[in-house]
Amino acid sequence: MHYPNNINKSYTKISISHSNRGMNLENALNISNEYYRKKDIALIFKKPTPIGVVDVSYQNHKKIIEKAYFKEPSTLDYNGLYKGKYIEFDAKETLNKTAFPISNIHEHQTIQIRNVIKHGGIVFLIIKMNSIIYLLTGEDYINYLDNEKRKSISYNYIKDKAFIIKESYQPPIDYLSIVDEVYFKGE
Amino acid sequence: MHYPNNINKSYTKISISHSNRGMNLENALNISNEYYRKKDIALIFKKPTPIGVVDVSYQNHKKIIEKAYFKEPSTLDYNGLYKGKYIEFDAKETLNKTAFPISNIHEHQTIQIRNVIKHGGIVFLIIKMNSIIYLLTGEDYINYLDNEKRKSISYNYIKDKAFIIKESYQPPIDYLSIVDEVYFKGE
Repeated sequence: MHYPNNINKSYTKISISHSNRGMNLENALNISNEYYRKKDIALIFKKPTPIGVVDVSYQNHKKIIEKAYFKEPSTLDYNGLYKGKYIEFDAKETLNKTAFPISNIHEHQTIQIRNVIKHGGIVFLIIKMNSIIYLLTGEDYINYLDNEKRKSISYNYIKDKAFIIKESYQPPIDYLSIVDEVYFKGE
Repeated sequence: MHYPNNINKSYTKISISHSNRGMNLENALNISNEYYRKKDIALIFKKPTPIGVVDVSYQNHKKIIEKAYFKEPSTLDYNGLYKGKYIEFDAKETLNKTAFPISNIHEHQTIQIRNVIKHGGIVFLIIKMNSIIYLLTGEDYINYLDNEKRKSISYNYIKDKAFIIKESYQPPIDYLSIVDEVYFKGE
């Protein structure tokens, strides 16, 4: 990736979007989390994808995986610690312009969202849709599920309830600024 | 594993240790975490081991890993949410009777322990040594590291500072009872 030389100057929204366009959501979040860790702002990591190992071999006493398959995760992909609080979230991208298909979230993950709320943690979804990155709280996600018996979340609901995360240079997706607004207001 | 028929009756320490003897520390902790989740006590999971995928294939549109290697973890193995608090820990077993080799803890993990303390989370080590399971707080671990410039933690220090976790039937390793004593005293 190439950035212009004047990276310290302010960017317009358009040029910023352009710099990040090649970056997928997962990469941009990993870079953001690394930024938060380096700046001592938060300790948030992507969990490794769970695998089932079928076959291994040994090379110079090191275990090598010769066959494995991906398993379905029981939790959301990202979790960690921010301002003394437990945080967990997942990030999903859809090309669908009018609705976010709930099939993007595994059933175990929806159970996990309910549980994190119950146990007093912060939990949300980061949804990229129509080229905009939204933060939808776990509570608003569960409310939709429980009240609307539908297979997708309408874009109108997302536009109404979710918070827009502005893209920037460092960190590329500053979702903690929204977490501050939503969960730490007045602190 | 076979349990006697009278599993609801109280056990002596000896018979309890015996039932768990065949179970390794990781299995016993996974069962304990499952118990905590089912009973709605805590949401704590073992993180999958991070891997680097070298080669994949596709079978019926499913991605199969054909070659991969294990990577060094940047965090401790277990983390989650208990009584609204962030918890992270690792579990280590040593056959050494007089000292716990610090080489068991990767350097990144020691950094992570320092960081979790700094960000207000609960962090500790579960150490099995001389057939006893101990909980050593992250703070006591770091104090030892910083004050004694040694390559192992003496068993005397562990006996002095760490808390013994009694083994039982359900959950096999009830470490949260110690977490209650140490971190939630008076709540």
